[in-house]
Amino acid sequence: MGHGANLLQAAIDAGVHINASCGGAGVCGTCKVLIEKGEVETTRTEKLSEEEYKQGVRQACQSRVITDLTVYIPVESRLEKAVLSREGEGVSKVLATGWRFKPPLSKFFIELPPPTLEDTTSDLSRLLRGLKQRYNLSNMWVDFEVVKRLPQILRDGDWKVTVTTLVTAVKPRAGDRRKPRVINIEPGNTREKHYSLAFDIGTTTVCGQLLDLNRGKVLAESIDYNGQISYGEDVITRIAYSQKPAGLKTLQQAVVTTINGIIEELLAQSQVELERIGHIIVAGNTTMTQILLGLDPKYIRLTPYIPTANFIPPLEASSLGIKVGKRVHLFTFPLVASYVGGDIVAGIVGAGVHQRKKLTLYMDIGTNGEIVIGNSDWMVTASCSAGPAFEGGGVKHGMVATTGAIEDFDIDPTNLEPEIHTLGGAKPKGICGSGLINIVAGLLEAGVIAQNGKFNTGLPTKRVREGSDGYEYVLSWAPETQIGKDIVITEADIDNLMRAKAAMYAGYRTLANSVGMPCCDFEQVIVAGAFGSHINIEKSITIGLFPDIPRDRFIFIGNGSLLGARLTSFSTDVLDAARKVAGMMTNFELSENVDFMNNYIAALFLPHTNASEFPTVSKRLTRTPITNQSRG
Amino acid sequence: MGHGANLLQAAIDAGVHINASCGGAGVCGTCKVLIEKGEVETTRTEKLSEEEYKQGVRQACQSRVITDLTVYIPVESRLEKAVLSREGEGVSKVLATGWRFKPPLSKFFIELPPPTLEDTTSDLSRLLRGLKQRYNLSNMWVDFEVVKRLPQILRDGDWKVTVTTLVTAVKPRAGDRRKPRVINIEPGNTREKHYSLAFDIGTTTVCGQLLDLNRGKVLAESIDYNGQISYGEDVITRIAYSQKPAGLKTLQQAVVTTINGIIEELLAQSQVELERIGHIIVAGNTTMTQILLGLDPKYIRLTPYIPTANFIPPLEASSLGIKVGKRVHLFTFPLVASYVGGDIVAGIVGAGVHQRKKLTLYMDIGTNGEIVIGNSDWMVTASCSAGPAFEGGGVKHGMVATTGAIEDFDIDPTNLEPEIHTLGGAKPKGICGSGLINIVAGLLEAGVIAQNGKFNTGLPTKRVREGSDGYEYVLSWAPETQIGKDIVITEADIDNLMRAKAAMYAGYRTLANSVGMPCCDFEQVIVAGAFGSHINIEKSITIGLFPDIPRDRFIFIGNGSLLGARLTSFSTDVLDAARKVAGMMTNFELSENVDFMNNYIAALFLPHTNASEFPTVSKRLTRTPITNQSRG
Repeated sequence: MGHGANLLQAAIDAGVHINASCGGAGVCGTCKVLIEKGEVETTRTEKLSEEEYKQGVRQACQSRVITDLTVYIPVESRLEKAVLSREGEGVSKVLATGWRFKPPLSKFFIELPPPTLEDTTSDLSRLLRGLKQRYNLSNMWVDFEVVKRLPQILRDGDWKVTVTTLVTAVKPRAGDRRKPRVINIEPGNTREKHYSLAFDIGTTTVCGQLLDLNRGKVLAESIDYNGQISYGEDVITRIAYSQKPAGLKTLQQAVVTTINGIIEELLAQSQVELERIGHIIVAGNTTMTQILLGLDPKYIRLTPYIPTANFIPPLEASSLGIKVGKRVHLFTFPLVASYVGGDIVAGIVGAGVHQRKKLTLYMDIGTNGEIVIGNSDWMVTASCSAGPAFEGGGVKHGMVATTGAIEDFDIDPTNLEPEIHTLGGAKPKGICGSGLINIVAGLLEAGVIAQNGKFNTGLPTKRVREGSDGYEYVLSWAPETQIGKDIVITEADIDNLMRAKAAMYAGYRTLANSVGMPCCDFEQVIVAGAFGSHINIEKSITIGLFPDIPRDRFIFIGNGSLLGARLTSFSTDVLDAARKVAGMMTNFELSENVDFMNNYIAALFLPHTNASEFPTVSKRLTRTPITNQSRG
Repeated sequence: MGHGANLLQAAIDAGVHINASCGGAGVCGTCKVLIEKGEVETTRTEKLSEEEYKQGVRQACQSRVITDLTVYIPVESRLEKAVLSREGEGVSKVLATGWRFKPPLSKFFIELPPPTLEDTTSDLSRLLRGLKQRYNLSNMWVDFEVVKRLPQILRDGDWKVTVTTLVTAVKPRAGDRRKPRVINIEPGNTREKHYSLAFDIGTTTVCGQLLDLNRGKVLAESIDYNGQISYGEDVITRIAYSQKPAGLKTLQQAVVTTINGIIEELLAQSQVELERIGHIIVAGNTTMTQILLGLDPKYIRLTPYIPTANFIPPLEASSLGIKVGKRVHLFTFPLVASYVGGDIVAGIVGAGVHQRKKLTLYMDIGTNGEIVIGNSDWMVTASCSAGPAFEGGGVKHGMVATTGAIEDFDIDPTNLEPEIHTLGGAKPKGICGSGLINIVAGLLEAGVIAQNGKFNTGLPTKRVREGSDGYEYVLSWAPETQIGKDIVITEADIDNLMRAKAAMYAGYRTLANSVGMPCCDFEQVIVAGAFGSHINIEKSITIGLFPDIPRDRFIFIGNGSLLGARLTSFSTDVLDAARKVAGMMTNFELSENVDFMNNYIAALFLPHTNASEFPTVSKRLTRTPITNQSRG
């Protein structure tokens, strides 16, 4: 580490992932490290207790390196890659149907007549003439880089060459022909080796797949944290960071480094050669997309929240620093609005929402919750800021869904003792988002907490107690944990979850109302997002996150964004659908909407202040004896 | 100068133009310099006489710098820029008619409604929507660089911006709409400042004009030697040089440096700011075009003579090193064949040949002579290697058309004394191409030479004598010259001119025959090329270069290439015409054509072996008394 350097930055530079939810502002306290040897200069904030400070604990973001150091990164501050792959587990459900296998990236082998004194047409005209005669391809645009290499390749291949074409993402108008681009030419017949990459660029994680475009198969998959995570936890902190000097460039490079690492991993897994990759399709939310492309995201967070563009022309991936061949184009999914991005468009086409008359609610649950309501005829969208609770943020012992996170929870109604299950079966380390839902639902059903989210006191258990942050329930005693401290859920944690689920509920309720629909008789509810795949339908209805409708209407599609990116790589039909869907979506801005505020306040209750909106839950809860009075 | 450096290269690096016809191979002897002080290491070739060597004369290309030097460059070896502007003299004749003033580069001012919470469409969609509503522009492609700057520009301009669009050179097909590109956006209303550049990139000289696209006017014009001249005199030597290591890059940079110098000059003359230049149109022969774009010209000189492409997509000028804004596109005129390039296509559209039924012969006379025969219905083309005689090359005292070149010549039939006129009225230094024609025609008419190009001996004049290279005629005695030597025309010089004119004549005769036309009853003869503008019709017919048809059918259009480039900058109609013309031209390859060889041999006579092909000349010559017997 360079002396004088910021410790968090030095760790990032060394490739060590340290949690830094607030982006290095010093206000979240997640980047605590223990200085075992050596000296740092630290600005102490209120996030560091007297005792911690004495022990040598420091906030990495607030420390400067003075001497050589040995630093221990506590488990709570560590981001581990190993168990991330859980997110990729289980095949996403492909609900979209009827598309033809017809990748936008195509290869054509052609044998041309060599030039003679009687046929002296130029190399390029000869190639285009051949493609027209043999494959009826016309109206082509040829990249200048291809023109440049053409003479040598044609002769190296003895006039037998393979041409790669790409159908670009520019929306064709009625009556206009598609204009495929010739993006590469190789000597000989290389059709057999024909691959592309699909990426989901999430705020927290980046997931990539290597696709075989001849067979329509996923050959490899890899996932990693988005390198930007060290600069802030959510899109708002990232946008704030991007406004610092060189901030945008730093963030862009961070995600590009992540992408490059994933590409390396995919190539290693599949034994495919880098130069056989011909195309990249990326789906991401608006902020992630703009940062990746180097488009200043400044106006995304300023009212009235305007993205730079909805449809972005494809560009050369290498121009962004992505380590692929010079002629590989990167296509980003079209965006709808500042907080409804290409990931949602990808999910909608992957789930086939646009193909059916069925009235659908599509939800992507996360710090930023995105909602789509509609069918093949119309679609409305909105986003709501749920806060980080679903991803383990803003929760005393919250954590991302990695090894040691408490994910499932049951409670013995007789003695109020918990039964917990952690990810990876390890000793508990904290609580992930889906665990939080299950815990709150369990505590509610057992009467440990009341419908206003407050603890019932005087219960016959030592697990409910008054802690430094108010009332709390002990999920795991210190000796049983990895962190050597009691793992608890506090009233403040429950409050954060209630705000999060209230925002989601108010979001789809307001959106439904705004198109004249009474909430919430959806014929189908599609839940997307890696997080979404691991939550329990019944318990999510219990806390009022999901609508109280027949359980068989719920479908989890996992990473819908990656699914859409993959299908688009396989079919221009899906590519066209993506454009159409992005164009037909009407976005409603909820942040300053009065109905939304009213719906939100009404939903700050478990499951809801209006019991009739959750009939089956209300019925069940009334059977539950409330043993002691609530402090409501 | 760096010690150890090649002296020719050191001079080039220092911006000093030295003649080096052979491209530094040591075989032409044109780059002789006098070492006045200091030391060089030289390989002596047969081009350097014993005496010259003793005096300190060296071939720059064969010398390495040993110490600091003072070098004198003799006038014969010097290329002077000052009188080049003569080539730009006189307005080219615009023969093309009926085109609308509608530049491919357009500016649109637009005032957009600022975004609100009710209208949150993206910046780009807002812009496109505005352009559609206000100007009915649709189907636009927006450059990524514009997308990137869009948010800031829109807000800096308070939603009032000027958009620059370019109609690209990609040939539209029937039924397809034009797809204008948005290549720039500026805050506020900048329509008033709207300029572009037109260039003719010749093998010897580069000529540029700065155009006002609002008024359709030429604001400034400048000309300079093509910096590649130090690497070879003609396209074949240049192609050979391009095959050396880094040769192509060196040649490309040489012409780009010339272009940049011209741009600087044009801006200084016109007081236009660099960033107001929005577009560049370039016309050049196939080799010059390919080298400028960095397209390997290797196959142009190998049979069957194949250029890389006929239609080249426009590209960013700055990517070639041209010092203009990042968003300035460079459009090169479409090419027809390896030796019929964009300069000819430009000339044809500038001359309006494609607009009339009139059977036309279009000639561009130079080292490489290009010929077009046709009208609005059909066109055939060919090129023939005339050799450098028309440009003063391969001639003992030949020189390019600069100050001191003998340009006009009369002879007193009574005493055979010459009357010479030089360019710039200076003391004579050598003979330029048009001078050579006039001299040979004069000598022929006065009976000093016979129709086979040999001197008649025993004439009553000391001016005809036997020199070291055979018989010669003294045009100017040493004391009257700049070079302190007798300036003579030799039999070898006359022979070279006869070969050159025979190649041109055989070219258009063969081409006419190949489409079933008897030579040479053209309804119109258009002579292009800066050289062409200064030659005498009557004398050119006398030597058999031009066909013996009524003199009023001849039209000189000057630099047709620059003319076409300028008109195309002013009108998409002309742009479309250029595409159409390039597509309709059928090229005939003459280099291995038997008819051409026969026609060539028959034309190696003054004016021609077949007197009936030049009736008026033959009639006049028979009246001329041949005073002494020819040594034929």
